[in-house]
Amino acid sequence: MAFEYLTNLPLEEARARFLAALDERGFGPESETVAVADACGRITARAVYAHISAPHYLASAMDGIALHAERTFGATETTPVVLRKEDFTVVDTGDPIPEGCDAVVMVEDVIYQDDGTVRLYAPAAPWQHIRQIGEDICAGEMILASRMTVSPSAIGAMLAAGVLEVDVLRRPRVGIIPTGDEIIPPTADPKPGDIVEFNSSIFSAMLRQWDAEPVTYPIVPDRKELISAALSKALDECDAVLLNAGSSAGREDYSAQVIGELGTVLCHGVAIRPGKPAILGCRGKKAVLGVPGYPVSGILVLNELLKPLLEQWYRSAPDRGETVQATLARAVVSGLKYQEFVRVRLGKVNGKLVASPLSRGSGMVSSFMKADGMLTVPQGVEGYAAGDAVTVQLLRREDTLDNTLVAIGSHDPLLDECADLLHIADPAMFMSSTHVGSMGGLMAVRRGEAHVAGTHLLNEEDGTYNVASIRKYFPRGGVSLVECVGRTQGLMIAAGNPLGIKGLEDLPGGLRYVNRQKGSGTRILIDYLCKTRGLDTKKISGYDREEFTHTSVAAQIAGGTADAGMGIYSAAQIYGLDFLPVCMEQYDLLIPDYAMDTPMVQRLLEVLRSDAFRERLEALGGYRLENPGTVRQHF
Amino acid sequence: MAFEYLTNLPLEEARARFLAALDERGFGPESETVAVADACGRITARAVYAHISAPHYLASAMDGIALHAERTFGATETTPVVLRKEDFTVVDTGDPIPEGCDAVVMVEDVIYQDDGTVRLYAPAAPWQHIRQIGEDICAGEMILASRMTVSPSAIGAMLAAGVLEVDVLRRPRVGIIPTGDEIIPPTADPKPGDIVEFNSSIFSAMLRQWDAEPVTYPIVPDRKELISAALSKALDECDAVLLNAGSSAGREDYSAQVIGELGTVLCHGVAIRPGKPAILGCRGKKAVLGVPGYPVSGILVLNELLKPLLEQWYRSAPDRGETVQATLARAVVSGLKYQEFVRVRLGKVNGKLVASPLSRGSGMVSSFMKADGMLTVPQGVEGYAAGDAVTVQLLRREDTLDNTLVAIGSHDPLLDECADLLHIADPAMFMSSTHVGSMGGLMAVRRGEAHVAGTHLLNEEDGTYNVASIRKYFPRGGVSLVECVGRTQGLMIAAGNPLGIKGLEDLPGGLRYVNRQKGSGTRILIDYLCKTRGLDTKKISGYDREEFTHTSVAAQIAGGTADAGMGIYSAAQIYGLDFLPVCMEQYDLLIPDYAMDTPMVQRLLEVLRSDAFRERLEALGGYRLENPGTVRQHF
Repeated sequence: MAFEYLTNLPLEEARARFLAALDERGFGPESETVAVADACGRITARAVYAHISAPHYLASAMDGIALHAERTFGATETTPVVLRKEDFTVVDTGDPIPEGCDAVVMVEDVIYQDDGTVRLYAPAAPWQHIRQIGEDICAGEMILASRMTVSPSAIGAMLAAGVLEVDVLRRPRVGIIPTGDEIIPPTADPKPGDIVEFNSSIFSAMLRQWDAEPVTYPIVPDRKELISAALSKALDECDAVLLNAGSSAGREDYSAQVIGELGTVLCHGVAIRPGKPAILGCRGKKAVLGVPGYPVSGILVLNELLKPLLEQWYRSAPDRGETVQATLARAVVSGLKYQEFVRVRLGKVNGKLVASPLSRGSGMVSSFMKADGMLTVPQGVEGYAAGDAVTVQLLRREDTLDNTLVAIGSHDPLLDECADLLHIADPAMFMSSTHVGSMGGLMAVRRGEAHVAGTHLLNEEDGTYNVASIRKYFPRGGVSLVECVGRTQGLMIAAGNPLGIKGLEDLPGGLRYVNRQKGSGTRILIDYLCKTRGLDTKKISGYDREEFTHTSVAAQIAGGTADAGMGIYSAAQIYGLDFLPVCMEQYDLLIPDYAMDTPMVQRLLEVLRSDAFRERLEALGGYRLENPGTVRQHF
Repeated sequence: MAFEYLTNLPLEEARARFLAALDERGFGPESETVAVADACGRITARAVYAHISAPHYLASAMDGIALHAERTFGATETTPVVLRKEDFTVVDTGDPIPEGCDAVVMVEDVIYQDDGTVRLYAPAAPWQHIRQIGEDICAGEMILASRMTVSPSAIGAMLAAGVLEVDVLRRPRVGIIPTGDEIIPPTADPKPGDIVEFNSSIFSAMLRQWDAEPVTYPIVPDRKELISAALSKALDECDAVLLNAGSSAGREDYSAQVIGELGTVLCHGVAIRPGKPAILGCRGKKAVLGVPGYPVSGILVLNELLKPLLEQWYRSAPDRGETVQATLARAVVSGLKYQEFVRVRLGKVNGKLVASPLSRGSGMVSSFMKADGMLTVPQGVEGYAAGDAVTVQLLRREDTLDNTLVAIGSHDPLLDECADLLHIADPAMFMSSTHVGSMGGLMAVRRGEAHVAGTHLLNEEDGTYNVASIRKYFPRGGVSLVECVGRTQGLMIAAGNPLGIKGLEDLPGGLRYVNRQKGSGTRILIDYLCKTRGLDTKKISGYDREEFTHTSVAAQIAGGTADAGMGIYSAAQIYGLDFLPVCMEQYDLLIPDYAMDTPMVQRLLEVLRSDAFRERLEALGGYRLENPGTVRQHF
């Protein structure tokens, strides 16, 4: 048993070892015969030759009469040729050419006489308007080479050539075995500690995109003998098996042991992050992958290790995807020990493509959904600095980036509603929002990296919003402040207010507070409110526990891990929380001159002025709409 | 009944009229609810919001111990903190954080004592190694906007957020009704006059690619009442119906009449070629298209008129495809009356992208299969000259063009075998062959448009092959002549030689000959052979009937429309013809210096030298292989 315990094998090496071992042992390709009509998108297993010619007979290419061309020689405008009934045959397009005929004259050029004869005023050239046998395809001709994808027109060509079945590469069957005591099937109502098993659904969808056939097995508890039995069965039935979770070296991580006992562990531990504890193994010509449990790790392991194996099955050229050059918005620090994969958002603003790293947590499946690209930091590289030019692998079509409105700044659920309405109004347009707080939004606009920034920055001196900050950070102007909404800020507290909280004054009394991050408008507001009320924020328990959105603050209170937090009415509403209004503030949009005339921004302003937007905000609650979408002031 | 008879409506106008009429009458979109796990690739009908947060509880992000962080404050390397059993809880990754705890210390940093207490040498920060509720997704948050494609990670995000079902746009059902008396289902053995019905298979595959659901109805004979009944039924069951053939204005073309009686003909006759007799109609909010019978016309009508309608159903942005700039290899002449669609082969040679028009016959389904791109000649434009820069819509991925070996020249079935072996050897490489005869190949190399040209040009003065022609057309050299094969040329005649043909001398005796095109090596050979034997080619019947390949000459003889033709042994073999050998000739490859060092050409030479190539040619028969793939001479 070639068993290695949590090595740190470089990705290239691990992949090469895995592919070579499976190739040696005879992993795919296998073929199957399918009806040609069902073969679209499949890969031919061998070259396809025409059985018959198409057309398979001499056919008329026109409606008209078939005749022997020689009989028409000499016909002119002044000396027409007359043909008797027995000298021609009426034919429609596609009709066979009768014996002895070698030309067709179009019906438009035939003058019928009362006695059944016809006159022709021009000679016919031999073989005119006749489709020769094999004009399209000749019997014996190669229609499709091996390993080619069957297209709709190839289906037509094969059927025309009498080929009714075709040998194609069989889709590899890939088993997925979810394991774990806490794992439960998807539900809308899990108990604390229940871990919803959705990896198999993600993996199945990925496998189908790669032309493999997923087979998902029932969840197996963390017991070695049960895992072993499940893996053995799956290996009998599939070409490759994913053993999901238990791939690490913890108390209940049996994967490596089980794979080693049933077959061979080729490698345990790959120098990638996320995805390090991956296990690569095989039993005979079947492949086994021990896949880490966190969804992001799992997706990466499948991308980097299973996809190449499937490409090897199909003997297809590796699909490396497209890459773009982008400027990095924030520094990315990486460990020297690992090749690190960083999901990024891409924003094209004012002609410049900017990559913003997304959360790197392995549990963040949403970060994969939001990602536009993947940045790879090679092993041995410490990372990249903000402003570095980096190569990013695209996860979506590049042309959609040109039509994506980039919003960076303060969070409000209304931005998602705008994104939805914008895309409905113009399906070619998208909107991507990143929540970095009001100050972060101003800075992004200043760096030329955002089309629009949501902002609600209080001027502590006069209680006005936004104008003072914009004056300060854009002394030379070049931006517009666009009116959006007034919104109610207040204390979100548990439903029914079990602790009897009356207002901000109660916060220092031992309550568990949850705060927003520094630089956010809401943090500036609570800091200001505490200061003016003489409340010592050091005495507020949890004042340094920071969340990045109104909804995540609300989620902590609803989950019972905090008692109060400052936020907007709509967030409290979503979670059914009680809400003590504190003040009405102005939430506006900062739009730089370089973005104002883009079709996306203009469309956004239309959305803001629309009835649909007003209706959606009424449903959310806590907003005051006066003239949303109008320019308040140009700086 | 708004009925118009074979108008010539410009495409843009016809399409706009069709789309507007259906939009007005309420054609799609409709939605349906599907399980999230099955939703990959589907389009959301409305925005999707999270039901629950993910994680839905405070979870440990590590294996270790959960504790109240305050208890660890002050711990240092020299003054560790000791915690009693009741002060901490052992947790694995994913476990819920017990009441009263607000931090996790990794197992690596915990020193267990024999008495069950633990020592910590560093303080824990509040909330460290804890996944906050909603860290990934907050309940109430918009996960996906409307009209977005569901990705594998979006499936994961929805399931994590307790969303088990999702409203997606229903796939439009499109009925296909094949009509015609001569139409039969696909068969390997059709009778003369039988027209094999493969359009419905092509259309079905196209519809699936466009996310529509095809429903193919049985073939309907050319009787108006039967067509009407079939259309009425299909309109009840589908969202759109394709009535295939009978769309013109001939004797048995009932489509327009039937559509007009059941609903409304919006337009009959569109100014496109191929595809002119298309009919656009509707019944209520259901669409009807009368689609011409020739496959190429049908594919174009679906592309230009049905695809935009389906995009309207999905309210998706029109997919215009990618375009490239290319140099036109040959002139394209077009009628002023029509917008003309010309399939082209694209070849990238020496950095230059060349577009070669393919056969424009509407019956040529193979031309669609071979096409790399589509050139559009607008209505009112007479065409383009050879050498013009034209914009071509890509029908395959642009990067495959960089890896496609362009062979232009004389035809031999061995080229297809080379293409097959080349692509098997390197799945990233492709080979495209165009048969224009030996002289055509030399000219293509001279123009810098081919990597390789098959050639067998006889020097009439000394009976040698190729060298004299190359000297003449490449006086300054820059090319290599690479040895390929010797091959047997001779007379192909019907099996069993029913006419008792003995040799070339019998040709002028009233036999029906079928010839190769001027400029082909075989034509030069037969011209030469007749001249040296004193045979008058004017007396050979059919000497001016020209085919472009050996196999198409053989197909005419096998089909009984000709008695004899000059060609190679392997072509006669494929058709089971008798063969009277006349001479052995040298078939070589001309490779220009600019192409010699490309990976594709080098790989081709390896293929020529391989055993696999030798085996395949032995199976074809009639070849003599000495040192294929070696450079015979550099010029």
